[in-house]
Order: sequence, then structure tokens, then C-alpha cells
Amino acid sequence: MGFLWPPGKDVTNGSWRHTNIIFSSSGLVHVKNPHLDAMEEDILYHLDLGTKTHNLPAMFGDIKFVCVGGSPNRMRAFAQFMHRELGLAGDGEELADICAGTDRYAMYRVGPVLSISHGMGIPSISIMLHELIKLLHHAKCRDVTIIRIGTSGGLGIEPGSVVITDTALDSSFKPRFEQVVLGDVVVRSTELDKALAEELLSCSTETPDFPTLIGHTMCTYDFYEGQGRLDGALCSFSSEKKLEYLRRAYDAGVRNIEMESTAFAALCGLCGLRAAVVCVTLLDRLEGDQIRAPRALLGEFQRRPQRLIAAFIRKRLGVQGRTPLPTP
Amino acid sequence: MGFLWPPGKDVTNGSWRHTNIIFSSSGLVHVKNPHLDAMEEDILYHLDLGTKTHNLPAMFGDIKFVCVGGSPNRMRAFAQFMHRELGLAGDGEELADICAGTDRYAMYRVGPVLSISHGMGIPSISIMLHELIKLLHHAKCRDVTIIRIGTSGGLGIEPGSVVITDTALDSSFKPRFEQVVLGDVVVRSTELDKALAEELLSCSTETPDFPTLIGHTMCTYDFYEGQGRLDGALCSFSSEKKLEYLRRAYDAGVRNIEMESTAFAALCGLCGLRAAVVCVTLLDRLEGDQIRAPRALLGEFQRRPQRLIAAFIRKRLGVQGRTPLPTP
Repeated sequence: MGFLWPPGKDVTNGSWRHTNIIFSSSGLVHVKNPHLDAMEEDILYHLDLGTKTHNLPAMFGDIKFVCVGGSPNRMRAFAQFMHRELGLAGDGEELADICAGTDRYAMYRVGPVLSISHGMGIPSISIMLHELIKLLHHAKCRDVTIIRIGTSGGLGIEPGSVVITDTALDSSFKPRFEQVVLGDVVVRSTELDKALAEELLSCSTETPDFPTLIGHTMCTYDFYEGQGRLDGALCSFSSEKKLEYLRRAYDAGVRNIEMESTAFAALCGLCGLRAAVVCVTLLDRLEGDQIRAPRALLGEFQRRPQRLIAAFIRKRLGVQGRTPLPTP
Repeated sequence: MGFLWPPGKDVTNGSWRHTNIIFSSSGLVHVKNPHLDAMEEDILYHLDLGTKTHNLPAMFGDIKFVCVGGSPNRMRAFAQFMHRELGLAGDGEELADICAGTDRYAMYRVGPVLSISHGMGIPSISIMLHELIKLLHHAKCRDVTIIRIGTSGGLGIEPGSVVITDTALDSSFKPRFEQVVLGDVVVRSTELDKALAEELLSCSTETPDFPTLIGHTMCTYDFYEGQGRLDGALCSFSSEKKLEYLRRAYDAGVRNIEMESTAFAALCGLCGLRAAVVCVTLLDRLEGDQIRAPRALLGEFQRRPQRLIAAFIRKRLGVQGRTPLPTP
């Protein structure tokens, strides 16, 4: 695990070079598709990138950290925050969206960090991950760590807590992702990198103003009925049945609920990416369903996982620095 | 079905009044949730709207058509196109995003038409639909027709064809949507309004420059393995197995494949909304997997369902007019 990067002049002028980075291993991304080699061109349609139209090794070959999250605005803000955290020249306000030709996803790069939005739900993150993993493969990236920085509903923990996922569970509290392939169901593991989760937890000493913990994360296909909410357009169950379900989830070790982690864990795991899921909780679902906190507080909550990940990336790169609050 | 709206001065100054509209029925939206009445406030979190912060009846009470599609840019372009098609004052370039406080979805209104983006995949469209249906309920809207205007992969039909869905099928070619509620699977019907589909097909006489047909639409949770693509980061099957699956889909009546229609049909059907799915096909999946057409041609393809829906809305409203090509 880990590599050292002594800060040097290459970083301060906004570019980034291999020369200063010492890798501990040489792990390429594992694309598991025998058909890809036979393709003359690979169009990454939803990213508006391609092997013939873009020099992917030049654009992305030295990427070491990929951070993904649902909201395009939040992932732009994270890129700007990382720009400052890595001490790069300029204020980062002018970062260009690499996927500007499409509005399906947004992508920003800052030094060795790629920040990408994935929309909401498993299908949306799956499309992005297939194309991102092919991008990292075509670019010949090595030793990439990928982290989902998200929002979630908490279970029995203080709103604003940050949960680092050890295992993603489905709505039956099982550590599995069911992928349909040609109409048949294939079951995949949703284990995440436990050493990476511990490494991330150790970085929370840099962010002592909010609680950070390791727990199971439940991933659902639906925000309302699927997460036992009483406030959707449809609801056929009682408050008691809802709480019984959520308490069973808590007893199974679930500490937060979101909508992407099982597919993320399964795809990244199969492709040999060290992966983590780090989500802030916007409310305690044992106390309610609606997200009632003021927007300003929600904004501060959403910057918490960003601050933890910034501390982690700085530590991995050997960059000394403050951990200021990211701007909204 | 249908109501008449004789054009008058209220439209040309950009506002819209009930007075000129004659309804054929008085169908309210059916929210099926006994808990909603007991809520003092309803925060539609992902739309950044709420019953205490916004006067929803005043903002949306006279909405008659809701058009939804994946891409925020495309749904803004559709709103601008409808602005011109309805003969409203100005060029529509300055339409404001009603959900500007969030980047999860974008929403525009033009006369009695609401245009909303829903992102990609069932979970993303489900969140939007739950909150939209509650919005229409709180706003006391009546006789609302909702149409998904999307993109899809075609099956054995010319790329650029527009498919009006009669029934949405899952990846086993069954007309059902499986919704998880508190960990249990509930099966729902995915029938769509057949009279509305026929009415839409009859409007294709106004758009004779492209083929329009009625067929089944297959809805999947995944774009790559789930749709039998050979070009994802993972692929475990042969080209022969892929084609065998797609041919079985064709034999079951499937003419296009997308990622939202089953949940859309199920939710709208349960809530009493007359619903249709109208998607253009960007390629023929029996011929390939990658979307290779030039962006300009894809843009023209994506405007085809918009032109059909514009013809339909003008006919419903009794607005005479041309069907010019929408601007990109």
C-alpha cells in the first residue's frame, strides 16, 4: 500500500510528472473483456472521450486517485478544494470539465487526482465506472485508488457523521451485488479494501470536529419505498414496520444507507482497483425521513468526507499542509 | 382524452390561464400514501422545492403536460423548442431552471408544459417521479399527461427511428417492475396508456421525415452487461450469445432498449397519470454496440421525439403551427 511523493516544482506549476512518484507495486487496472483488444477504436460515449480522438495515456497516465460522487457541482468543488490542498498554483476556480461535450457526467483533474460525478443510483454509476475503468486501462494507469465520496442516510448515528464502508450490503443485508447478464443473474462480492478503510480511518485524526467510523453500508435501488421512507408518492407500510426494518438493518451492522455502493464495490473489486466508500450522513433515519437540515449545514456536512479524503491524499503524497474548510 | 385550448392573448404574453382550457375530465393525481396528509411540510429535497417554501398550486396548478428525459441540456432545449412551438413571446432562451438550487435535476416550464431531466437509470428517475407526483398532488393538477422523451438502442430497426412504447418489459421480456419494499419484492404492472400511444402515433403524419412505430421496450439496470454489450470493462459472453439474447428480445416484440421505462410505467400507472414513453434509437444493436454516429447526427436524432411531442401538444391544445426543426 501507498507510495511516497516528495513535493517538487512540477506540482507548483500545475503539471504533474511521474519522476517524483515512487510506487510500491505496479498494479495495472484489470479490464476483463477479451473483445476489447480486437476493437480498433473505443468510444467512451457517456464521457465524450475516445481512443482515437484523445491521447488517453498523455491525459490520464499518471492518475493515482479517482474520487467519484453523485453531484457534478460537488465534484467540481472537491477538485477546487484539492487544488488548494495540494498547493497547486492558482485558485483552481478555472478548472475545465474534461467531459464538457456531454452533460451525463462531469470530470476534473487536479495533479494525480481525478474527480468525477456519477449521478444517482446503481445504473448511473455503473455506466460511468465501465467507461472510467476502460479509460484507466487505455491510459495504462497503475496503482489507482478509487474512493466514492457521497451522501447517505444514517442509522442510529449522529447526523453529519462520516461512515467508511467496510462491506456494502443489499436490501436483504447480504454482501452481494446481483448483476443481470443476458437476462441471467450473476452474484458478485461487495467486499471493499479493509486496509484502505483503516488507513482512511486513521486520517480522521486530522478532522477531529466530526465523528468518523467504519460500518456496513446498505445500498438500495430506491430512495423512498426501497429505504422504508413514509414520505414518498407511494407508501403501503406503517411507521412501525419501517422502524422494524431499519432496526434489523442496524442489528446487521448497517450504519448508513445509499444507492451506489454495492455496484461500486463489485465492479472495482473485479477490476483490481483499491476501492473505498466514504459517505456523510445527512440525517438519522431512525428519527425521520425528510432531509430538514438547512442547506448551509448540509453543505458543511458534504464537505466533511472531502476533508477526510484530502487529508488521506496529502498523507499518501507526503504533502504537508493545513486542512482548511473547503469553500462552499 | 384530450381537451381544447383556443389560442388567446394569455399565451402570447407568456402567461397561461385556466380560463381558456376545457377539460374532458377532472382527474387528480393519485398519491397513494396515507402518511402524507399528516405531514405539516413536505420538502421535495431533490427538486429543491417544498410546500412551505413555495406556492406549488400557483406555480404548477395549470400544468397539463410533463415531459421528462435523461439529459438536463436536452430538456432545456426541449423547453425552448416548445416555447417557440406554442407561439409564446420571446425566444425562450432565458428560461429559468426551477430547480436551480440543486444540480440533481433541471426543470423548466413553458405554458402548460413542464420539462424535467431525470438522469440515467431506474433509481434516478424514481426519485424524480416520487417528488414530481407529490408536486402535482400538492399543486392540485388535473388531467396531466406525462411523456418520457428519451434515447435508446434499437433492435432490428433503422437508427433514428422513434419508438412509442406500448408495454415496457424487464430483462426477461416480462411486463413487470420489481420494486423492493422493506426488503421484500413487490411486482408491478408496466402497461402504458394504449390510446395515448395511438394518439401519439397519429401525430407522426406531422413528422414524415423519420420512421415512427409502436413496439415493446426493454428496460435494463445496466448499459453494458445488462444490455449484452461486448464493449464494457467486463464481458464474459461471446458475440453469438449476445446476438441470441437480442434476437430473443426481438422475437418477444422488443424494438428498443433503455433504462427507465418499467419504473416510469409502474409509478405513473399507480398514480393515475396517463403516461407514454417515446424514444429515438441511436443505433441498431443487432449491428453493433458502440454509438458511432457523429454528434451532429445524434443531435438531430434526439430532436425527433421532441418534434413528435410538440406536434401532439399543439394538437391537444388546438394550436396551429409549423413543425420547424428545433435548434440544437
